[in-house]
Amino acid sequence: MPAPITALDWRGPLADAVRAELDSKTKPPGSLGRLETLALQLALIQNVPRPRLDSARCLVFAADHGVAAQGVSPYPQAVTAQMVANFLAGGAAISVLAREFDCALSVVDCGVLSAQPTPHPQLLDRRLGAGTASLLEGPALSPQQVETALANGAALIDALPARAYAFGEMGIGNTTSAAALMHASTALDAAQCTGRGTGLDDPGLARKQAVVADAVARQGRSEDPRLLLSRYGGFEIATLCGAMLGAAAARSVVLVDGFIATAAAAMALRIDRALRGYLVFAHVSAEAPHARWLAELQAEPLLDLGLRLGEGSGAILGLPLLRAACALLADMATFAGAGVTERT
Amino acid sequence: MPAPITALDWRGPLADAVRAELDSKTKPPGSLGRLETLALQLALIQNVPRPRLDSARCLVFAADHGVAAQGVSPYPQAVTAQMVANFLAGGAAISVLAREFDCALSVVDCGVLSAQPTPHPQLLDRRLGAGTASLLEGPALSPQQVETALANGAALIDALPARAYAFGEMGIGNTTSAAALMHASTALDAAQCTGRGTGLDDPGLARKQAVVADAVARQGRSEDPRLLLSRYGGFEIATLCGAMLGAAAARSVVLVDGFIATAAAAMALRIDRALRGYLVFAHVSAEAPHARWLAELQAEPLLDLGLRLGEGSGAILGLPLLRAACALLADMATFAGAGVTERT
Repeated sequence: MPAPITALDWRGPLADAVRAELDSKTKPPGSLGRLETLALQLALIQNVPRPRLDSARCLVFAADHGVAAQGVSPYPQAVTAQMVANFLAGGAAISVLAREFDCALSVVDCGVLSAQPTPHPQLLDRRLGAGTASLLEGPALSPQQVETALANGAALIDALPARAYAFGEMGIGNTTSAAALMHASTALDAAQCTGRGTGLDDPGLARKQAVVADAVARQGRSEDPRLLLSRYGGFEIATLCGAMLGAAAARSVVLVDGFIATAAAAMALRIDRALRGYLVFAHVSAEAPHARWLAELQAEPLLDLGLRLGEGSGAILGLPLLRAACALLADMATFAGAGVTERT
Repeated sequence: MPAPITALDWRGPLADAVRAELDSKTKPPGSLGRLETLALQLALIQNVPRPRLDSARCLVFAADHGVAAQGVSPYPQAVTAQMVANFLAGGAAISVLAREFDCALSVVDCGVLSAQPTPHPQLLDRRLGAGTASLLEGPALSPQQVETALANGAALIDALPARAYAFGEMGIGNTTSAAALMHASTALDAAQCTGRGTGLDDPGLARKQAVVADAVARQGRSEDPRLLLSRYGGFEIATLCGAMLGAAAARSVVLVDGFIATAAAAMALRIDRALRGYLVFAHVSAEAPHARWLAELQAEPLLDLGLRLGEGSGAILGLPLLRAACALLADMATFAGAGVTERT
């Protein structure tokens, strides 16, 4: 079982004190909008009146998917391993953004088809196999693999502590896994849950929708997150799910990336609802079903920039906003301290 | 006359080359959304294939408004000068954000009621008077004051060069000026142009709407930006307008803040339409008419965080996104360079 998560108390004495402090700052009450909400959330997560974000990590969870054989992506499956190498070489979008935002980057191989040929200090081996089984033919993961993935994810947090995590993923075929998880766990139909991923054309999208519909028709809907993860995968989604739960148990904030990370978050929330307060949905992506799933989760994303890359690229863009929120709470003067007249 | 602005060529050879370079990077084409558009815009602004954002400045333009006597703000007029002191002391939101985002901060006194008692290295004296005349009774600025303000703004850019500017403002009563500028220069009625500013209650909002309606009924609508600035002010809006034009003439990018900065941008665009390509509308504020004005300008703001503070606080939050866009264009690997297979 994952470690217990302390549910945030939005009505308790700490929340009241932080709200009062925010209102004492030299600005009209509430005029910093979401930055004030973020400051309060970070204070409650860290359980201190002055939260700090002095360490941030980006973890990219990578794995391959048996369903890729169904032609659900315009890119060949080999790209997963190639992109892992690119992350490590520093040339991928998330590599650039992690440097830009002073965020440590690690890549977690959860089961890429071919393992990287050489060890790398930023690469963590948490392989559960050489890609999942196809979700179209039966469970993508065994129940034991799901448990191992959840435990691996939680243990990564102990190994790589940080105040804030931007979690991303890489895996050709994994928007199909995420779509199946969405279709099997909500009332939405396969078309509403399936998007173009890395850029499918209309016939490709129709094929992918059919795969999602067939898979869920065969394996079924469920309320049970472990069963859902077993049926629809993938290795990286299940590990990410465990990492989110572990991060919240460690009182760290989790920046949720796009559609696939939201799939992991949705499953993790079914494991422990107390996770909710530790999540910041960093952006709504251009992958069409993402906005629908965020609405189902009553999540209000911070950013809407038309991103649809994954890798944690949207999550990490939330980091400057979290840092700004902490700085404002810590460093802004009060009306009394600055000698500014309050409203009449 | 302000210096000429070179209109950006979105269909020329440089634009084509940058688009091709973006498509060669290891990501599905277009998957970085607005970050790709920003990278292209910055390349065209700097007229180079690899734009850099190695210097950024925040300028806050402050002035007082005669119309404040009409009870259009819940804060007394003295707060303008007090907040200028707070900016300089480092305690205001924009002070904190400028430090957080490594952005030089200057405050331009365009005509605060009482000048700061002591000089300060971050304070620039560009005073046009001790507050404007009331826009309810006649022109807020003389035609000569408008010209001086525009010239002052443009000259500030020469004095304080930077690749990127986040422009903000401070002035009790200045949402009334901005509302009057909007009402007098668009087809929208006074109610659609008037918001709660720093937090007016319903009676206050009704009073402010009446002031805006009366002022425009008395002084009239116009297409002429100089006439509009003269009638409705303010000193800081006119100076900001000149600074935007000067920044674009110097091929720098301008991050536009909220409602008042948008008023300045709308007037500046009427002076020189070529400014448009140099503007990045950083956010849509919670001041209700702001979204309407952005729609009129066909501007798509980067952020929507419920901010309504001014000071440049929304503008500066766009800076990490501009920096990210530059870094991605400069540093991401290509498919060929990284040995990643392209789409089939």
